[in-house]
Amino acid sequence: MDHRIVGELRAIVGMHAVLTAAESLRTYETDGLNAYRTRPGVVVLPETTEQVQAIVQLCHRERIPFVARGSGTGLSGGAVPVADGVLIGLARMNRILDLDVANGRIVVQPGVINLDVSRRVAGTGLFYAPDPSSQQVCTIGGNVAENSGGAHCLKYGFTVNHVLGVKLVLPSGDLVTLGGATLQHPGYDLLGVVVGAEGTLGVVVEVTLRLVRLPEAIQMVMAAFATTDDAGAAVSAIIAEGILPAAIEMMDHFAIVATDDAVHAGYPRDAGALLLVELDGAPIEVAHEVEEVAAICRAHGASELRIAATAEERARFWKGRKAALPAMGRLSPGYYVQDGVVPRSALPTVLRRIAALSAEAGLRVANVFHAGDGNVHPLVLFDPAVPGETERATELAGQILLACIAAGGSITGEHGVGLDKKAYLPKMFTDADLDTMARLRCALDPASLSNPGKVFPTPRLCGERPGPYRPHPLVEAGLAELF
Amino acid sequence: MDHRIVGELRAIVGMHAVLTAAESLRTYETDGLNAYRTRPGVVVLPETTEQVQAIVQLCHRERIPFVARGSGTGLSGGAVPVADGVLIGLARMNRILDLDVANGRIVVQPGVINLDVSRRVAGTGLFYAPDPSSQQVCTIGGNVAENSGGAHCLKYGFTVNHVLGVKLVLPSGDLVTLGGATLQHPGYDLLGVVVGAEGTLGVVVEVTLRLVRLPEAIQMVMAAFATTDDAGAAVSAIIAEGILPAAIEMMDHFAIVATDDAVHAGYPRDAGALLLVELDGAPIEVAHEVEEVAAICRAHGASELRIAATAEERARFWKGRKAALPAMGRLSPGYYVQDGVVPRSALPTVLRRIAALSAEAGLRVANVFHAGDGNVHPLVLFDPAVPGETERATELAGQILLACIAAGGSITGEHGVGLDKKAYLPKMFTDADLDTMARLRCALDPASLSNPGKVFPTPRLCGERPGPYRPHPLVEAGLAELF
Repeated sequence: MDHRIVGELRAIVGMHAVLTAAESLRTYETDGLNAYRTRPGVVVLPETTEQVQAIVQLCHRERIPFVARGSGTGLSGGAVPVADGVLIGLARMNRILDLDVANGRIVVQPGVINLDVSRRVAGTGLFYAPDPSSQQVCTIGGNVAENSGGAHCLKYGFTVNHVLGVKLVLPSGDLVTLGGATLQHPGYDLLGVVVGAEGTLGVVVEVTLRLVRLPEAIQMVMAAFATTDDAGAAVSAIIAEGILPAAIEMMDHFAIVATDDAVHAGYPRDAGALLLVELDGAPIEVAHEVEEVAAICRAHGASELRIAATAEERARFWKGRKAALPAMGRLSPGYYVQDGVVPRSALPTVLRRIAALSAEAGLRVANVFHAGDGNVHPLVLFDPAVPGETERATELAGQILLACIAAGGSITGEHGVGLDKKAYLPKMFTDADLDTMARLRCALDPASLSNPGKVFPTPRLCGERPGPYRPHPLVEAGLAELF
Repeated sequence: MDHRIVGELRAIVGMHAVLTAAESLRTYETDGLNAYRTRPGVVVLPETTEQVQAIVQLCHRERIPFVARGSGTGLSGGAVPVADGVLIGLARMNRILDLDVANGRIVVQPGVINLDVSRRVAGTGLFYAPDPSSQQVCTIGGNVAENSGGAHCLKYGFTVNHVLGVKLVLPSGDLVTLGGATLQHPGYDLLGVVVGAEGTLGVVVEVTLRLVRLPEAIQMVMAAFATTDDAGAAVSAIIAEGILPAAIEMMDHFAIVATDDAVHAGYPRDAGALLLVELDGAPIEVAHEVEEVAAICRAHGASELRIAATAEERARFWKGRKAALPAMGRLSPGYYVQDGVVPRSALPTVLRRIAALSAEAGLRVANVFHAGDGNVHPLVLFDPAVPGETERATELAGQILLACIAAGGSITGEHGVGLDKKAYLPKMFTDADLDTMARLRCALDPASLSNPGKVFPTPRLCGERPGPYRPHPLVEAGLAELF
């Protein structure tokens, strides 16, 4: 990175908040997916909105691409830097700015850790609902960028359902406010676009979150089935009955045994599929729903039913589920976490298709997922040391996505598109659909500086029409260059 | 309207679906607010998506502004035509295209009447939740444009919470799909922008709606209070207790007496304020919550409490509330329905401020509103025959909006901005905020053809920066003209 730029960045954030040494930059090369690595030109660690604005204004003036990131736990390569670009690390923007218990609102900086929001309001009877599995380390800013989900999104919704407003530094460096404390806002509601835009529309520097009331009672049903078909049918029947559990998680036989081996969760090891159904709400309602869920599971052939009424018992039921990833790590030197969505009613079909694809590829696949949302998370096991196996795993993971699309689903449930899935976007959208998105991007970031190369498959110069490449009038006139 | 254009429109939709006679055009001059009147150049009544596309493509080619509308029940002038422009009436696009009871989804054309959605699914245990007071006549397309609310939005949310996807004809005539049946979509989620964009981003031609389960039990509490302060405090206390009623409606003394005079609802006529609290859900839960709500109302000084357990009793409780507008019509030759939002906790303050403004202006104001949402609907009574009174009423209605903004609220809860409130937008947003919205508009509608002159205060030519007028480079080069 140019010394003059580094000097300007140091003038903005101070000497020690600008990193240029190779060993410091290495930390920021990749994300939780760990499949893509790029070394940034410089890392800058702002503490205030004004510093972020100044950094972005500098990048805008000098046409330097920038990527903002939090803890880097993402699983789609969304926070991977641009070579020679600026990496804006937001970990130091970790202050809680305001708490309004009466109206159930909290204002935080983007570097605040997800779980710290609930910790901050402990004792008020409120909590922050979206709970990605990485919630002990991931940041609210990253959650906003990826519209993160979690096991309890079935009932509580995704990050977008809990963000009331943001302050956003646009790629031009201008600061805008989207949404806010009031429920309804006139004009265009751009908040829902920015949540899940994966950092391509600017840098979120302040987030107003909705807090919800802690449920009075929580209980959990564990049910073992002979097949994933039976478990899938039980899931559909529970929802059809009008019950909305806080979470419905499913594990297949391979996942049951692997996690039980790893953490001795006491799961029924001979089951073909396991459902964990968590119910919360008023005590009288929860007690009634537990009975209903148990009856539905029995009617769908559940061979074993257990009910957790205390927090300790629930923690034991969750133990194996939460240990799924480390359990795979014990069994295989490498694994790939895929993330796709299908309509709930298509779960049995898609699970059978995944099994067939796994057999064809000769690679093991474990299924541990948010069944209530139809959000599958196949874990594709492979050995990077075996020549060709990484490629076969990537190919298999891609085939699974195509199966999700064929079933009327989506290529991502909660991990985002990032670098990893951008090639699949045209499988879900028409040229006109993608062009409409590109128009918005170009309207706010004409030079494509904010997290460039992510989400969209073939970066087009702004104003360029879909179809075969034609030189852009602005390029021909020497007024712009293809970035 | 040019004969050639009329001929082309007839070729698209057929001879009888193009209206040009003055008496036919008159029907389309205004909307439910009835404060703005413009005669369109021509009215065209398409039946299919392809016809809408062809009409919009023609408008785009010829640079003719167009306005799409449904039943025209809006209360902000949003569907008022452009002089000499094309008015696209969508009433004939009233088919239900698909119903998927298992997944709780229905696909409709925009001209379907709101209540017809619930009628179509009667017997399935499902219904369509958003219920604007005009739901017997207003269309889903209009609801999408205005992001309509209703009495039950407190629990169920606004239209935006119930639209899973739309097909949109862009101002260019291109057809795009936003959202869809799957909960999560990659890329930019533009659906939330289009819902509530008041027709400025194109014409919605197909809508996928979410259906929700009919509650098993419904009960209602009516509570009379001495003052709106007491009633307002009870509202906050109910929510703080963790109870989420389906609706909380409030009426002040003037509204109680006026509606009781009109429809003999049997309301306590000496009350200073009346609360109607509707609770729905599982029977056991509703019974419990009714007791809790009654206890809270008593604790806040309720002088009279009645509980409606049957549908007939509930209908009687609702009767006066639903007759509020005709009741004002009996008392005054003219009235203005204002629509603002304040944080729930600010209700008492804002209601006192409205009373003071009413006294200052010497104009009667009745308050009948969605108290749970903080969505006030002051009805400003005036006599258009008295010189200057219409202007004073408009001024008073505007002062009320400023009071809502000052209390941290919004200039519209559910009626939209349209023509009526666009001058107030800069009171809520910075130049950078409005410029960001304008960039999106310009990206999708550079010639400002789709419902021009609505929502945004001072139409700018696309690319123009905020601030004093400067000629635009494209205009100077003769490549564009200020529309």
